[in-house]
Amino acid sequence: MLALEGIRVIDFSRILAGPFCTMLMADLGAEVIKIERPGKGDDSRAYGPFVNEESLYFISVNRNKKSIELNLKNPKAHDFLLKLIDTADVVVENFKPGVMDHLGLSYETLSARNPRLIYCSCSGYGHSGPLAMKSAYDLIIQGITGMMSITGPDGDHPYKVGMSIADVDTGVFAALGVVTALYQREKTGHGQHVDIAMFDVLMAILENAATRTLNTGKPPTAIGNRHVTICPFAAIKASDGFFNIAAGNDALFVKLANALEDPQMAEDPRFLTNDSRLQNWDALEARLNAAASKKTIAEWCAILDTVGVPAGPINNMAQALENPQIEARKVVTTVHHPVAGDIRTVATPVRLSDSAREEYAPSPVLGEDTVRYVAEILGCSEDEAHAMVNEGAFV
Amino acid sequence: MLALEGIRVIDFSRILAGPFCTMLMADLGAEVIKIERPGKGDDSRAYGPFVNEESLYFISVNRNKKSIELNLKNPKAHDFLLKLIDTADVVVENFKPGVMDHLGLSYETLSARNPRLIYCSCSGYGHSGPLAMKSAYDLIIQGITGMMSITGPDGDHPYKVGMSIADVDTGVFAALGVVTALYQREKTGHGQHVDIAMFDVLMAILENAATRTLNTGKPPTAIGNRHVTICPFAAIKASDGFFNIAAGNDALFVKLANALEDPQMAEDPRFLTNDSRLQNWDALEARLNAAASKKTIAEWCAILDTVGVPAGPINNMAQALENPQIEARKVVTTVHHPVAGDIRTVATPVRLSDSAREEYAPSPVLGEDTVRYVAEILGCSEDEAHAMVNEGAFV
Repeated sequence: MLALEGIRVIDFSRILAGPFCTMLMADLGAEVIKIERPGKGDDSRAYGPFVNEESLYFISVNRNKKSIELNLKNPKAHDFLLKLIDTADVVVENFKPGVMDHLGLSYETLSARNPRLIYCSCSGYGHSGPLAMKSAYDLIIQGITGMMSITGPDGDHPYKVGMSIADVDTGVFAALGVVTALYQREKTGHGQHVDIAMFDVLMAILENAATRTLNTGKPPTAIGNRHVTICPFAAIKASDGFFNIAAGNDALFVKLANALEDPQMAEDPRFLTNDSRLQNWDALEARLNAAASKKTIAEWCAILDTVGVPAGPINNMAQALENPQIEARKVVTTVHHPVAGDIRTVATPVRLSDSAREEYAPSPVLGEDTVRYVAEILGCSEDEAHAMVNEGAFV
Repeated sequence: MLALEGIRVIDFSRILAGPFCTMLMADLGAEVIKIERPGKGDDSRAYGPFVNEESLYFISVNRNKKSIELNLKNPKAHDFLLKLIDTADVVVENFKPGVMDHLGLSYETLSARNPRLIYCSCSGYGHSGPLAMKSAYDLIIQGITGMMSITGPDGDHPYKVGMSIADVDTGVFAALGVVTALYQREKTGHGQHVDIAMFDVLMAILENAATRTLNTGKPPTAIGNRHVTICPFAAIKASDGFFNIAAGNDALFVKLANALEDPQMAEDPRFLTNDSRLQNWDALEARLNAAASKKTIAEWCAILDTVGVPAGPINNMAQALENPQIEARKVVTTVHHPVAGDIRTVATPVRLSDSAREEYAPSPVLGEDTVRYVAEILGCSEDEAHAMVNEGAFV
């Protein structure tokens, strides 16, 4: 039995932060029911690349979920939805603050009907404070929180994190908040509002950089691939590109110098201690690159592995996915999508020994579960539900 | 009452991934007891910068926790520890696989004594597969998983994410795994092993890049601060540096061109549609930068805000921490450390309406809770416990 089996989640969220949260919950066994706009559904259904005209993006963050097509402004649909939420444990939404209220679906309204309901809002800046109503995008949040200022070669060339870290991590923290509230409900019998902000989340995961700045007054800047206090702990350049080394102490540095066939490097007075190596990084980097230029990344990684110096390639995604851990731990899983066919996605990293998920269901076709839930909630036959849906009662 | 009050966590973890997990749990109300090496404690107690010789790094990821000084190889300490774990709900450790087994503290041993125990292991590659025993560092994992390959200006200049994303996100997923297992224990009555790997975690948060590669065969490369399919959604250069714009559709692009005082830009046939803007990005970027060079970041952000084009500065951490949301939402909190004094850290982003944490306790001084727990677990007076500790019974 999966850990969250029996938990019903009504999911109003679109694109990424909310859907990532509810995918984690669906992977853990929750019944996640997406409420989607008639005809179009989640915006990300239109994001490429496509396989048989189905969005890979949508498939990759919506597996194991159900889909209902509903017009939130249609009174019949609204009535049905309120009854559906009466049967639910969790609501997740990532509209701008205020939108759910305008739809008659505020936390206050829904929790008055269903006091056990846990209601999770994901937003850019949270549901309080002067910026609450400001729209937010991953890029904007990465810039405003300082994440970009510490990523890249130096202080003048800030770079965003390549994936949508503000959205994705907000989804993970939202899942943690919801499951924590589910646990607490076992003790108290009632639900609560979980308010997760992209802004708060990036500030929290930037904790060391933030704490440093708050208490020393000195904001860190980007320093490329180096470590701020350990040296050499960096990317250096082999004959065919960069790779990482992590020589965290003097003994490892000596081993590294020997392995790179420049043992004199470890005897150079500029490089004797971690502090002196940090101070003379430019010289050390040139020396390391000169030595490393004589073999390939693969050759160096094999040599350093043998002598016990932590090192590793800087893989592209295709190389990364060839790692033997992928097959051994089933990090990649296949979903059988009715239209797109077999699609490979990344399994959940939440590995529970007694409730491991072996198989993943595909993302839903738009509205494929409408009839089933209408029948369940309105207490009619599937034929009757089908007739209502065909007449457009909810769109 | 906080959500995880009553939950006792025995924390063997050091430095970052494990401690970040247990900090999240402590913030949510769990009693987290760090088991630390006599005299030295968690390695990160030695990481600078320091305030009154106390590590800011340690303080920032260990608030709200307790500390016991124990030599894990001392038989008396081991016996005490087993009895302590008998009273616990959760064990968290981030040693290399095998270390806890050698210490007589394997999942099998501990769960046989305490079947309700949830045992969470954080490691580089997980507790199975051919790479399980390989040591891992954040930088190495960022390289090997492909995270670096999509971060930076282009495919030839990979950059690491500025913060330790593999460690920190592993901590967040570990907390999600543990709380999920706590929830499931309410149903089943027994605990389980939670196996969280830095490798799995980065693969999972890279999901879109991974899914794309797995199903199209084309690994994405770094593309600087641009968006892969939306244009212009990028950092452009004002008179005093870069700032972000996110003009997600044609109407916003027209508004942007007008606001930048180059309305002809929106009429240029190369820039009429999102697709043509993507194809002619080099020309568009030059045009945007030429227009943006005439005012400062602050001026442009104010202008674009007024006309409703999403935009934002690329703040350093000091600027980021001046955001009015910080004070309004109490994103920064102060802990009163007995040695370091008042230290400001970032509050938990897990905001629960009915169980919000108002105050944060400081990180513990090494061993400050040993006597108290010895007295509790061995059923003796604090004086007797104090005498045993003073005699060095557990070190």
